[in-house]
Amino acid sequence: MSVDEPVRIGLLGRGTVGAAFADLLDERADEIGAATGRRPEIAGVLRRADGDFDEIVESSEIVVELIGGTDPARDYVLRAMRAGRHVVSANKQLIAQHGDELFDAAREAGVQLRFEAAVAGVVPVIRVIQESLAATEITKVFGIVNGTTNYILTEMASTGATYAEALGRAQELGYAEADPTEDVNGADAAAKMAILARLAFHTPVGLDDVSYEGIEEISPDDIAYAKELGLSLKLLGVAERVDGGITVRVFPCFLYRGHPLAPVEGPFNAVMVEAPTITEITMSGPGAGGPETATAVLGDVVSVISGEAPVHATRRQLPVVRDASSSYYLHLEVADRPGVLAQIADVLGRNEVSVRSVVQRGLGEDARLVMVMHEGPETRFRSALEEIATLDFVRATPRAIRVIEEEFV
Amino acid sequence: MSVDEPVRIGLLGRGTVGAAFADLLDERADEIGAATGRRPEIAGVLRRADGDFDEIVESSEIVVELIGGTDPARDYVLRAMRAGRHVVSANKQLIAQHGDELFDAAREAGVQLRFEAAVAGVVPVIRVIQESLAATEITKVFGIVNGTTNYILTEMASTGATYAEALGRAQELGYAEADPTEDVNGADAAAKMAILARLAFHTPVGLDDVSYEGIEEISPDDIAYAKELGLSLKLLGVAERVDGGITVRVFPCFLYRGHPLAPVEGPFNAVMVEAPTITEITMSGPGAGGPETATAVLGDVVSVISGEAPVHATRRQLPVVRDASSSYYLHLEVADRPGVLAQIADVLGRNEVSVRSVVQRGLGEDARLVMVMHEGPETRFRSALEEIATLDFVRATPRAIRVIEEEFV
Repeated sequence: MSVDEPVRIGLLGRGTVGAAFADLLDERADEIGAATGRRPEIAGVLRRADGDFDEIVESSEIVVELIGGTDPARDYVLRAMRAGRHVVSANKQLIAQHGDELFDAAREAGVQLRFEAAVAGVVPVIRVIQESLAATEITKVFGIVNGTTNYILTEMASTGATYAEALGRAQELGYAEADPTEDVNGADAAAKMAILARLAFHTPVGLDDVSYEGIEEISPDDIAYAKELGLSLKLLGVAERVDGGITVRVFPCFLYRGHPLAPVEGPFNAVMVEAPTITEITMSGPGAGGPETATAVLGDVVSVISGEAPVHATRRQLPVVRDASSSYYLHLEVADRPGVLAQIADVLGRNEVSVRSVVQRGLGEDARLVMVMHEGPETRFRSALEEIATLDFVRATPRAIRVIEEEFV
Repeated sequence: MSVDEPVRIGLLGRGTVGAAFADLLDERADEIGAATGRRPEIAGVLRRADGDFDEIVESSEIVVELIGGTDPARDYVLRAMRAGRHVVSANKQLIAQHGDELFDAAREAGVQLRFEAAVAGVVPVIRVIQESLAATEITKVFGIVNGTTNYILTEMASTGATYAEALGRAQELGYAEADPTEDVNGADAAAKMAILARLAFHTPVGLDDVSYEGIEEISPDDIAYAKELGLSLKLLGVAERVDGGITVRVFPCFLYRGHPLAPVEGPFNAVMVEAPTITEITMSGPGAGGPETATAVLGDVVSVISGEAPVHATRRQLPVVRDASSSYYLHLEVADRPGVLAQIADVLGRNEVSVRSVVQRGLGEDARLVMVMHEGPETRFRSALEEIATLDFVRATPRAIRVIEEEFV
C-alpha cells in the first residue's frame, strides 16, 4: 500500500456531528497523513434524501455512522462490516441495543468497530477501559454521562430555578432537545451505562438490565435543603461488581463536597473507574457538542488507520443483581406535633434503616423533616418509605433521593 | 501463529514496580489470553546481580524496561529494539533525555515503543494524547505530574506543617524518597512535561527546554494567606503553544477554588488537555505506586500484543519561547509607615504590572502586604520585583508565586 494512497471514508449522516466531522477531517487530513502515513478523505456522504449506501460502502475503507437511532443504522453498519469495512459510530442506542450482534459481525468480518463518541463525547472513557485497562479487573464504573441533566441540575442549584425553568434554559442554549424525554428520564444515561458495564465487565448487558430514574421530580426545595448539608445533586450512572454479579443503575444522587464528581458542572461529563490495582481514575470533559463529538469520532478513525485492534467479546455471563445497597436523603412534609419524629424513627428502626442526620425546619402545618440515612439495602428503605407515606401526619408524598456517603480525600 | 503460543516477556528490573508487574502479569495472564488470543508469560528477569541480557532478549517478543535511569537502560532498550523486540518502559528520564534516538530506533526496527507509566502513573495521559487526540491540534497540556510534591503541599495546607515537616511525613509514608531532590526541585516534573510537550506538539523537546522551579522555598505563611484568598497551591507543569512556538515550564502556582485541578490532593496526579475542538479534558488518578504503575505497564503490553501502532515522530520544529505571561501573588514583609503602598504601586505601575487585589495584615514593623497581579509578561513582573526588593522598608526577600487567574465554570 503506497504512502500516497488515501484512506477513503464513507460518511453516513450529515447533521451537526456529521458536518463537524467532515470539516475536521478536511482540516486535519494532512496531519493524519503525516502521523499514519495515509491521508483520509471523504469518499461519499449519505444524507436522508441524497446518496446511495451501496456506492458509498463500495468506495470506502472505513464507514463512519453518524445517523443515530437503530433503524436504519443497524442495517447499514451490519452491511458495511459484512462487506469488510471498518466502522466508527457515535451511536449509543445502536451499541447498547445491538452490541452482541454487532461485535459478532465485526469479529466474523475481521474488521474494527469503534465507538468512543457513543459515551461521554470526547472524554476517552471507552478507549481507556478497552485499551489502557484491558487487563485490569475493573470493579466499578460510574459517573455523569448525560450533559443535559447535569446542566439542568447545575442551573437549579446555582439559581434556585425550578426544573421546568432550568429545562427551558437548557433548550434555549441547545443543551436539551425539543423533546428531552430520553435525557431527563435517565434512558439516555442508561444506554451509555449498559455499554460501559459490558466493556468493563466483559459480560453481555442490555438496556433491560439497567434500572433507571430521571430528574423530572426533583424540586428546588430538595436542592436547597441539601446544599445546607453540603450536598450537591447529580444524575449518576453506576455499574458495579457485587456479590453474585453486577448492578447497573442510573439515579439522581446527592454527593458530599469533596467527592471528585461534585465539582463537575454544566454540560460536562465525568466518569470514574475503580479497580484494586488502580485505586481510581477520573476523566472529565464536554459530553456533547459538534466539534467535541467529531473529535472523538476522528480519534477512532485515526486508530483504525493506525492498525488492527481486537473487537470486544464478552467472556462471561454475570447475573444482574437488582437489590443494591444505598444511602438515602428523605424529605418529609409533616404536621408539627409531638411524637412525629418518634413514629418515623420507629418505622425506620423496624425496617433496620439507620439514621445518620436529621434536620427539622418550619413550624405547625408547614414543618419539614430532612433526614440522611446510613447505607443499607434499598428494599428495606423502600419498605420503610411505603409505611411512612401512610402515616396521617405526613402531608405530601415523601421524597427520597440517594446519597453517596463515602467521603474522599 | 497459534492461539496457544504464549507471548514471551523479558523483564528488566525487579524493584517495586517490577515485582508488582510480574505478579499482575501472572494473575491476569488468562484474561489477557482471552482478550487478545495470546497468553503472556515471563521469559526471563534481569536483576542487578542476576540474569543475562542477551539471553532474555533472545527468548522474548516484548521487553519491559523497569530499571529506571538512563544507564544502562538506554543501551538495553536500543539493543532490544534493534533486535526486533517491542519495548514497554516506565522510564521518564530515558524518554525525556533520549526520545529522538529511541523513537528513530523503534521506527527503523519496525517495533513499538510504549511508555504510559513514565508520566502520571496509571493516568492514561500518553495514550489519550497519542491515540484519542492523534488528529487534534492540542494547544495546552498542563497539570500536576509529581505526587510527592502534591502530597507535601496538601499536607502543608491541611495541617499548617512546614515544608520540612511535610517532607518528613511524605518520606515516612513512602511518597518521597530518601533523597527527594529531583521531586521537590521540579526536575522530575520537568522530565514528564518534556515528554508530554513532545507528544502533544509533535516537536522535539529536551530537558533543557523546560524551565523549572520547585517547592523548597514555599512557607506555611504563603499557604495560609492564600487560603484566605480562596487559593490553593500546586506544583504545575505547563506546556503550551504560544505565538512563535511553545513554552514548557514547571512552577509552584496558586489556583482559584473552582479550578479543576484545585481539588486534586495527596499523591494524586491530574493532567488537563486543551484544544479548540475539545474545550478541555481532565484526567486524574494515582501518580505512582507499585500496582498502579504496573497496571499502566501491563496496559501497554496488552496493546503491543493486540496490534501494531505508529511510533511517535516529530513533525515540526517549534522554537521554545522563554518569556511567558503569568499572574503573580506577591508577599512582602514591610515596615508599616505612610507611603509604602504608594511606592510599591509606583514601581509596579512603571513596569506595567497591574494589581488585581491587595490585602494588608499586621501592624508596625511586622506588617505584610499580600497582592495578586493581573496576568502580564513575566519579565516585566520580575523587573518590578527586583526594584521592590531594594526599597528600604521591605524587610525580607519578597516572595512571588504564580497564580492561575482564569476562573472555571
